[in-house]
Amino acid sequence: MTARLRIYLAGPDVFLANAAEIADAKRDLCGRYDFVGVSPLDNEIDVAGLSKRDAALRISAANETMIRDCDLLIANMTPFRSPSADVGTAYEMGFARALGMPVFGYTNVAGDLLERTRRELGKSIVERAPGRIEDSFHMAIENFDCIDNLMLVGAVEGSGAEIVVNAVADERRFTDLAAFEECLKFAARHRSRGAIGSDRPRNKPARTLAR
Amino acid sequence: MTARLRIYLAGPDVFLANAAEIADAKRDLCGRYDFVGVSPLDNEIDVAGLSKRDAALRISAANETMIRDCDLLIANMTPFRSPSADVGTAYEMGFARALGMPVFGYTNVAGDLLERTRRELGKSIVERAPGRIEDSFHMAIENFDCIDNLMLVGAVEGSGAEIVVNAVADERRFTDLAAFEECLKFAARHRSRGAIGSDRPRNKPARTLAR
Repeated sequence: MTARLRIYLAGPDVFLANAAEIADAKRDLCGRYDFVGVSPLDNEIDVAGLSKRDAALRISAANETMIRDCDLLIANMTPFRSPSADVGTAYEMGFARALGMPVFGYTNVAGDLLERTRRELGKSIVERAPGRIEDSFHMAIENFDCIDNLMLVGAVEGSGAEIVVNAVADERRFTDLAAFEECLKFAARHRSRGAIGSDRPRNKPARTLAR
Repeated sequence: MTARLRIYLAGPDVFLANAAEIADAKRDLCGRYDFVGVSPLDNEIDVAGLSKRDAALRISAANETMIRDCDLLIANMTPFRSPSADVGTAYEMGFARALGMPVFGYTNVAGDLLERTRRELGKSIVERAPGRIEDSFHMAIENFDCIDNLMLVGAVEGSGAEIVVNAVADERRFTDLAAFEECLKFAARHRSRGAIGSDRPRNKPARTLAR
């Protein structure tokens, strides 16, 4: 019997008022597919007496260690205070991808990046040349028929998956787990084919320079 | 004589109308400090005949290969269409960090994440409990005295650096390179102490599942 595979639960869910409840629900779903869900909230970090900033660094280091200790990552890529995913989630997707972990993802908002950016920026957008659409800083908006920035999409597609899209009502935007469950089903199918495993080298730490 | 260290130039600079010019300017600055600057624009990808989406995936894979082939990364963390850094940049920071590369960063906008988010979201923000500040989705705004999401800050501080902040005029927000040059100076100092090197294992590819 082999140990159950561990899934790092990346996403802005940690910012929810009911973050613990959602993490529990995700862990329960993971268990139903015989995975272990690992949430950034599982960190038991004693921040008593630390400055906010030192607490932040402690949390960041602990999250990195947790990712290294997982076998795959499922990212909640739902747009967060922007047309794109949460930056912390994007960071963790890149981190996992570099380690050779499969990176899966879902979003609870429909539309591709260009469409959402247009909606958010409105009239300040201009089509400066055919296919080159710019914001007021003359910066292009990615126009690749992609759900989000191409690095994020590349991580999921490069892992052999597609980003699961499930447009939900606004009030369930960060809590609806149907798309998350689709990612679990996909992961379970790949596990049964032996395509996802726990054979990566673990916990080689990132380097810290002496100050 | 050893080969010059290679710096991956991460940032939303690639979206600028004068992206090539800025990449050249960054490469020139790198050369001045005896580094080789490597821009995502250096990719020579033939996208003729590809769908936009396939082109995107080709670019993403090429960028990942380029990062693996560098020795350190300097991220332009200037807020991009949100209170936070560009998500593609965040992804690349995580990617480099997981590989053990030093990750340095700068921003051309002052203020911490909470302050900028407050400014952007305005009245929809409430302090629900002491220290817990929420947006209209009841999602907390990070309140850690940090410039951006703690994972991003953790990457730079975990690399032994601090994010260089240089508040510039709006019209130079994405083109001013003074803070970038500060990162180079920092990197050069660490190189001379032998703290940055080219001794990482290279180009172990991320795994792709068969579909």
